[in-house]
Amino acid sequence: MEIKLTAIGIIHTDHKTKEEAPIQGAFNPDTVGTVEIFSEFAEGLKDVELFSHIYLFYHFDRAEPGELVRHPFLDDTPHGIFATRHPCRPNGIGITVVRLTERSGNRLTVQGIDVLDGTPLLDIKPYVPRFDCHPEASDGWFAGKANRKKPSGRE
Amino acid sequence: MEIKLTAIGIIHTDHKTKEEAPIQGAFNPDTVGTVEIFSEFAEGLKDVELFSHIYLFYHFDRAEPGELVRHPFLDDTPHGIFATRHPCRPNGIGITVVRLTERSGNRLTVQGIDVLDGTPLLDIKPYVPRFDCHPEASDGWFAGKANRKKPSGRE
Repeated sequence: MEIKLTAIGIIHTDHKTKEEAPIQGAFNPDTVGTVEIFSEFAEGLKDVELFSHIYLFYHFDRAEPGELVRHPFLDDTPHGIFATRHPCRPNGIGITVVRLTERSGNRLTVQGIDVLDGTPLLDIKPYVPRFDCHPEASDGWFAGKANRKKPSGRE
Repeated sequence: MEIKLTAIGIIHTDHKTKEEAPIQGAFNPDTVGTVEIFSEFAEGLKDVELFSHIYLFYHFDRAEPGELVRHPFLDDTPHGIFATRHPCRPNGIGITVVRLTERSGNRLTVQGIDVLDGTPLLDIKPYVPRFDCHPEASDGWFAGKANRKKPSGRE
């Protein structure tokens, strides 16, 4: 079975290379980006500005599926790809929760964004705390891992 | 640009029809399901059991892209598709946060699942409260909307 997706827009950020892109937007809440939705999908944005936070779904267009067990950026122990947020996954779909600070027609200004400039946008969904916020969730291996630079030479 | 995805597994639930599937898993936290990961991807599950909550990414295989402004299940006012979680979206990708209660080889037992039986699984990511929990987020038009049955005749 094969599923085909098409971009509905483009994400513009100041992160021009993988090396300079932050590991997670939550570590860099002030990083601003612009989400441009292609005009043929712009009607679907009606009322999105009612939400303070949205999920961006995007394609990891500069990553390839890789090893199923690998080092994530924040740990020096390898983990299964499905226990990490690493971009090199069997299906290269990324999500990030961002703060929506402004909408101007088909352009959204967002804060706390970790994606590379020019990343193809696949979907936007409203972030709804009742469905999406689980403060009781465990941190798994992320527990105690502080933000750091991406280890040199590690894709 | 076209992006191709393939299923990495299948989600098994008791929800056999769209009518009986719950609107959101958060409304039905005790609903149990099983996530079966195909053997060629099973290695990627290493350490997933360290997490109490995971994101399931799946394909809305029984929904087609529809109108860009439409009625969601929980409201009688139409909204743009990107301001709803409705399955009939330009790219039919769904996510749900579920509680991971057991792992047995390539099978995960999860609670709080709202997807249809037989849904193709696309990805699993660990839910990390530091990145994913935003209690300060607004509810947008979901504010005050209680759980209800899917309105009759509304796809």
